[in-house]
Amino acid sequence: MFPPAMAGYDRAITIFSPEGKIYQVEYAGEAVKRGWPTVGVKCKGGVVLAAEKRKISALFDPTSLEKIYLVDEHVAISPSGLLADARILIDYARDVALSHRFIYDEPIDVEYLTKAVCNLKQQYTQFGGARPFGVALLIAGIDGRGARLFQTDPSGVYIGYYATAIGADSSTIMEFLEKNYKHDLDIGGCVELAVRALATAVEISDGTNVEVAYATVEEKRVKKMTPEEVTELINKLGLKKA
Amino acid sequence: MFPPAMAGYDRAITIFSPEGKIYQVEYAGEAVKRGWPTVGVKCKGGVVLAAEKRKISALFDPTSLEKIYLVDEHVAISPSGLLADARILIDYARDVALSHRFIYDEPIDVEYLTKAVCNLKQQYTQFGGARPFGVALLIAGIDGRGARLFQTDPSGVYIGYYATAIGADSSTIMEFLEKNYKHDLDIGGCVELAVRALATAVEISDGTNVEVAYATVEEKRVKKMTPEEVTELINKLGLKKA
Amino acid sequence: MFPPAMAGYDRAITIFSPEGKIYQVEYAGEAVKRGWPTVGVKCKGGVVLAAEKRKISALFDPTSLEKIYLVDEHVAISPSGLLADARILIDYARDVALSHRFIYDEPIDVEYLTKAVCNLKQQYTQFGGARPFGVALLIAGIDGRGARLFQTDPSGVYIGYYATAIGADSSTIMEFLEKNYKHDLDIGGCVELAVRALATAVEISDGTNVEVAYATVEEKRVKKMTPEEVTELINKLGLKKA
Amino acid sequence: MFPPAMAGYDRAITIFSPEGKIYQVEYAGEAVKRGWPTVGVKCKGGVVLAAEKRKISALFDPTSLEKIYLVDEHVAISPSGLLADARILIDYARDVALSHRFIYDEPIDVEYLTKAVCNLKQQYTQFGGARPFGVALLIAGIDGRGARLFQTDPSGVYIGYYATAIGADSSTIMEFLEKNYKHDLDIGGCVELAVRALATAVEISDGTNVEVAYATVEEKRVKKMTPEEVTELINKLGLKKA
Amino acid sequence: MFPPAMAGYDRAITIFSPEGKIYQVEYAGEAVKRGWPTVGVKCKGGVVLAAEKRKISALFDPTSLEKIYLVDEHVAISPSGLLADARILIDYARDVALSHRFIYDEPIDVEYLTKAVCNLKQQYTQFGGARPFGVALLIAGIDGRGARLFQTDPSGVYIGYYATAIGADSSTIMEFLEKNYKHDLDIGGCVELAVRALATAVEISDGTNVEVAYATVEEKRVKKMTPEEVTELINKLGLKKA
Amino acid sequence: MFPPAMAGYDRAITIFSPEGKIYQVEYAGEAVKRGWPTVGVKCKGGVVLAAEKRKISALFDPTSLEKIYLVDEHVAISPSGLLADARILIDYARDVALSHRFIYDEPIDVEYLTKAVCNLKQQYTQFGGARPFGVALLIAGIDGRGARLFQTDPSGVYIGYYATAIGADSSTIMEFLEKNYKHDLDIGGCVELAVRALATAVEISDGTNVEVAYATVEEKRVKKMTPEEVTELINKLGLKKA
Amino acid sequence: MFPPAMAGYDRAITIFSPEGKIYQVEYAGEAVKRGWPTVGVKCKGGVVLAAEKRKISALFDPTSLEKIYLVDEHVAISPSGLLADARILIDYARDVALSHRFIYDEPIDVEYLTKAVCNLKQQYTQFGGARPFGVALLIAGIDGRGARLFQTDPSGVYIGYYATAIGADSSTIMEFLEKNYKHDLDIGGCVELAVRALATAVEISDGTNVEVAYATVEEKRVKKMTPEEVTELINKLGLKKA
Repeated sequence: MFPPAMAGYDRAITIFSPEGKIYQVEYAGEAVKRGWPTVGVKCKGGVVLAAEKRKISALFDPTSLEKIYLVDEHVAISPSGLLADARILIDYARDVALSHRFIYDEPIDVEYLTKAVCNLKQQYTQFGGARPFGVALLIAGIDGRGARLFQTDPSGVYIGYYATAIGADSSTIMEFLEKNYKHDLDIGGCVELAVRALATAVEISDGTNVEVAYATVEEKRVKKMTPEEVTELINKLGLKKA
Repeated sequence: MFPPAMAGYDRAITIFSPEGKIYQVEYAGEAVKRGWPTVGVKCKGGVVLAAEKRKISALFDPTSLEKIYLVDEHVAISPSGLLADARILIDYARDVALSHRFIYDEPIDVEYLTKAVCNLKQQYTQFGGARPFGVALLIAGIDGRGARLFQTDPSGVYIGYYATAIGADSSTIMEFLEKNYKHDLDIGGCVELAVRALATAVEISDGTNVEVAYATVEEKRVKKMTPEEVTELINKLGLKKA
Repeated sequence: MFPPAMAGYDRAITIFSPEGKIYQVEYAGEAVKRGWPTVGVKCKGGVVLAAEKRKISALFDPTSLEKIYLVDEHVAISPSGLLADARILIDYARDVALSHRFIYDEPIDVEYLTKAVCNLKQQYTQFGGARPFGVALLIAGIDGRGARLFQTDPSGVYIGYYATAIGADSSTIMEFLEKNYKHDLDIGGCVELAVRALATAVEISDGTNVEVAYATVEEKRVKKMTPEEVTELINKLGLKKA
Repeated sequence: MFPPAMAGYDRAITIFSPEGKIYQVEYAGEAVKRGWPTVGVKCKGGVVLAAEKRKISALFDPTSLEKIYLVDEHVAISPSGLLADARILIDYARDVALSHRFIYDEPIDVEYLTKAVCNLKQQYTQFGGARPFGVALLIAGIDGRGARLFQTDPSGVYIGYYATAIGADSSTIMEFLEKNYKHDLDIGGCVELAVRALATAVEISDGTNVEVAYATVEEKRVKKMTPEEVTELINKLGLKKA
Repeated sequence: MFPPAMAGYDRAITIFSPEGKIYQVEYAGEAVKRGWPTVGVKCKGGVVLAAEKRKISALFDPTSLEKIYLVDEHVAISPSGLLADARILIDYARDVALSHRFIYDEPIDVEYLTKAVCNLKQQYTQFGGARPFGVALLIAGIDGRGARLFQTDPSGVYIGYYATAIGADSSTIMEFLEKNYKHDLDIGGCVELAVRALATAVEISDGTNVEVAYATVEEKRVKKMTPEEVTELINKLGLKKA
Repeated sequence: MFPPAMAGYDRAITIFSPEGKIYQVEYAGEAVKRGWPTVGVKCKGGVVLAAEKRKISALFDPTSLEKIYLVDEHVAISPSGLLADARILIDYARDVALSHRFIYDEPIDVEYLTKAVCNLKQQYTQFGGARPFGVALLIAGIDGRGARLFQTDPSGVYIGYYATAIGADSSTIMEFLEKNYKHDLDIGGCVELAVRALATAVEISDGTNVEVAYATVEEKRVKKMTPEEVTELINKLGLKKA
Repeated sequence: MFPPAMAGYDRAITIFSPEGKIYQVEYAGEAVKRGWPTVGVKCKGGVVLAAEKRKISALFDPTSLEKIYLVDEHVAISPSGLLADARILIDYARDVALSHRFIYDEPIDVEYLTKAVCNLKQQYTQFGGARPFGVALLIAGIDGRGARLFQTDPSGVYIGYYATAIGADSSTIMEFLEKNYKHDLDIGGCVELAVRALATAVEISDGTNVEVAYATVEEKRVKKMTPEEVTELINKLGLKKA
């Protein structure tokens, strides 16, 4: 895939290749493509995240692992890629959000938070001595501008979407979303679309291997569905495999 | 394009090649050439920026992405190249402009601001341990000397233009500008020229994939046209493709 | 196993390979696979650790070496991999736990402690100038959420398990655990399962080459069995080899 | 020009080649040789600088670019080479000159200022982690010892001249100067000689692509000629090409 | 011994080889294997160290060189490997022991001291910019848990032994110890066993090329035998060669 | 001269070659050998320096360049090699001499000053991150021990001489000095010998391309001869070429 | 001597070779072997140093160079190897000795001083960024334990001797010393033995190319013989060559 002639330009984030690429950042993107997929969908009324929680082993304790993290009352993050890297970024986001509440006595703007996290990511693509973060994030929440949904990548770029997916098989999921997304969805429709989209790439079983969270513009709070609620939803949608 | 004999001189910004070039800076220029194009045009009466906002996906939310950033009331920046790098420089420009207002109680001179940003860029071309910024900027504004328009590149050089373009296909755009620019344009003529020039290289549709901003010498304020205004303009100019 | 074409991408933790892997972290995992095995099993009532203490020499003093370390009254850690690295992490965990007691006047949450240790591990996978920790840990304890059992690896990821194993032949042990684990085990059953599982990979003799520790939800304290108790258990289970 | 056997000695400023050369400094000299030319001429009565300002594009705004910079009332600098590097050195010179006025309440000696700038340059040829400045400077002014004219190079050496040139085709210009310089020139003769010399290497048109500055011993001030004055002079001397 | 294919993984302590080894630490172990041998033996009643002091030259002054160093009244260290490195570690151990006495007003625990020294060693195996210590230590002493004897290696691991040896031919010495060690030895028996064991690998002559030190549990002090006492012992045991 | 097999040992000052040489220091010596020559001669009554000032160009201003620098009233330095490096060392020497006068209220001992300069040089031969100074110095002066003359090289070694030379063709000059030096010279004889010796390697013309300075034990001050005095001397000695 | 297969392990002090050697330290030893020889001899009554001072040139001023340096009243050092490195270590020794006198009001113990110097040397063999000191030292003096004579090498090891030599042809000198040293020598015999030993490797002429210093246990002071005394001794011993 990378011919030997490329060798050398891909050994440090501080080196541009002759075509102006930073290969280390692109390789970090490969770590993202191998991550468990996560999906985000937003509408006027709110925003939804749905993520796979793969069963690593029969003895794995599903309650011990999250794929959707609450950052503040009104914002959640779902990562895909290197999970230890994700944890660092999510803790950073929590610090930024908490400081904001403490200083300004109001919830942080979701885009402002996203930018703070991405500026940190950018620094790890420009300075030597460290590698980029090998993780993409979906950042979803409610703020003064309504429902917000951002996707970030290892380079530190962030872009807003109506619906998007990251991680393994995200292109399959995106295709499904593009065909089925409608701008007049209500929050219930968003939840269903997100889970159906995830099911195109993942062997969904029940609430132990899928997490779902949503926030409505009225409530301005992210709520995580319980495993039981998720199981019920999966059954209702007939998505359970075998 | 780069014969193997060059190998080695292009691995660090701290190395000159035998012909006195810093290849890493030139490779950063390649990242600029792959960026979405942006155009600047100035006249006696004011200055205009027009930039492409490419539709990455059908589900991309165009309101979430800017290609023209207000830095202060009287100055705007439109970047081309690595967007995460651009964000760092634009935030830096905002800090510089704000400090200036705070200390001197007056708007910053546009060239002074440009020089501050470019001095930062230059440092990333001389010291090891970091790569140059992979981004060019058009900096436009109004100050005591009238309408100003500067183009910067990754080396930290800046040059003033009557009309210019950066990013993909900028040479096609430049050719159009050189043929059509007139020194007696008014601000309306500048807006039209900028959008027409952009259309030589970009599949223009409407206000969702083109941003336009302008400032007049009388008002000394940068105004961003609304997507509706941009759509109207595009229709009026008959630039809509297909 | 690693073809020469990989050479170069595996020389620093700050380098991603084209497929998005950090080989130095994966090689650190090999140090873990060569470590003496250790087993963890939890149930509603408590949690158990059982570890091999290999007889390095006939003149080795078994009382001088631990494989299960008390971190606080309610938490213990059993490492596998480079023992000098493990010592650093365990001392760090003790500091974190002690500070928590001092500041909040209550025992630290087991997951919170695990996260602190893993954040330290993660840093050694992202910054140059140091290698990752070549050690995996089983962290077991009792807190407000009951019995907890986490497994960490050199990348800084941690995952909760009902039963798990690390070190040499851990896949053999895991297979045994998956076949024999039952969710209704009591603490005594956990102890027996852990020791039986260890015996599938280790030549068990008596309390000089096996360590066992357990904690019950009622007592919230980790207790290490004496060598005599361990010997008795081994004899009772008929696990003594030859 | 540099046989492959040299490879290796030219990769860092901290490495001498077997023949005692620092190739990185010599390569920085190549950046100077590719710069736009600038000329300096001095006589008893004063000193003159004349520099080319190349028309990069038909839409380039010549008023936005300087090739002769005032450093203090009595000193000016004209650079050739990497313009972003030049800007850093000129700002440094301005700081040094300003501090001197502030502390000693008198204009700085021109040689003292030159030495300060060159000491900074020298440091970038001895310490690793940064490249040398890719720029030569002509530093001209009036001080207690009369008219002064110094040429500096990337190594940090400076030498005084009666007349000299740096940048592209500087050897052609030097030849002209050596044939035509006379020690009894007055300031008007210096101005004419400088512009004529520049014309041997540059396609001179008018005040938009040539800058001229001079200082007389009586006035002790550097004056930049206006573009109109320069145009008039060029016409008078019959130097306009085509 | 090390095939060329290994080349590269053994160039820095911050690099794991594909099989999870840190070759620089293992190579430091080779420096130990080339050191003069030293032997430790402990029993209920006390602990003994015996070390070779090789006659480098006929004019070497044996009184100027120690192979067994008192660290505190109750602890001694005998190194094998790079002697300059050993000196640094022994001075460090003395500082740690002295601080402990000063702060707690009681002799330091021997294992606690050993751990402090080994933590320092570990750091030199994880961070770049320095090499590991090329030295192993036998640390012997008396504390509240009785007679203690630890062996450390360049990786920072320490292990307790009843009897052990480090340095050249240590495997020959170990074989002898394993055959001849008895758990009911008294301190006199320990001294004899240690010297006999050393004699299996070293051409023993008299008190000028062998050092012996011992500590009893009653006295809690390390005593070095005089050269005369050692000579007498060697004669008594009939160990003098030729 | 340096066979390819040497390659690698000559790339850093922190590397000894197998034969115990630091090639980077020796290569710095090559920069000295290519410098303009300078000569020093001492006798009971005083000490003399004579140096070439090569005519770089017909328009070069000889009054702008020194080859003999006063460091304090009683000490002068004449360098050969990289002139920008020399300037740094001479400024350092001036600082040291001035501080000494300020603190002790007496002129600095010439050897003490020489040692200070050479200690700085030595540091640049032992620590990475910088190259050695590519310059040799003749340091001449009068102190309590009479007339002093030291020669330093890039390694930081200094040695006293009755008469010596550095720079291009210094071996030719040394041969002349060895044949013609007499221990009973007076200061006038020293001056003549120094200039004659220089003439064996340099095309001497007049006071514009030779500098001479001397100090007598009675006066304890270094005096530079004026260009006119030097011209007169050259004519008297019949040394003018062509 | 060093086959190409070693290449790579000998490029940094922070790298052990597979056989546990630090080649850079061994190569520094080669610089010692090329140094001018120096000899030390001790007896009950005192200690002697004798060193060659090679005539570099006919015009070299022998009074300007020392090969035996007084460090304190009772201690002297004679180096062999890189003289600029030696100067740094000797200045360091002087500082240590002076501080000791200042703090404790008594002369420093000679071994304590030797250890301080050697600890500094050791650091330059373990940390990157600098090379080892390329110099060996003989340290001789009188303290509470009588006459002391230590030899140090670039690794930081020191060893006491009755008589020893370092530098070029030191093995020839050692052979002579081993044959002729007697333990009942008086100080006069030591002086003669040292000079005779030096003469086996050096073309001795008179007090201009040999330095001798001695200290007696009664006087506790190092005295340097005058050149005249040395000449007389050489004549008396009939050692003058040709």
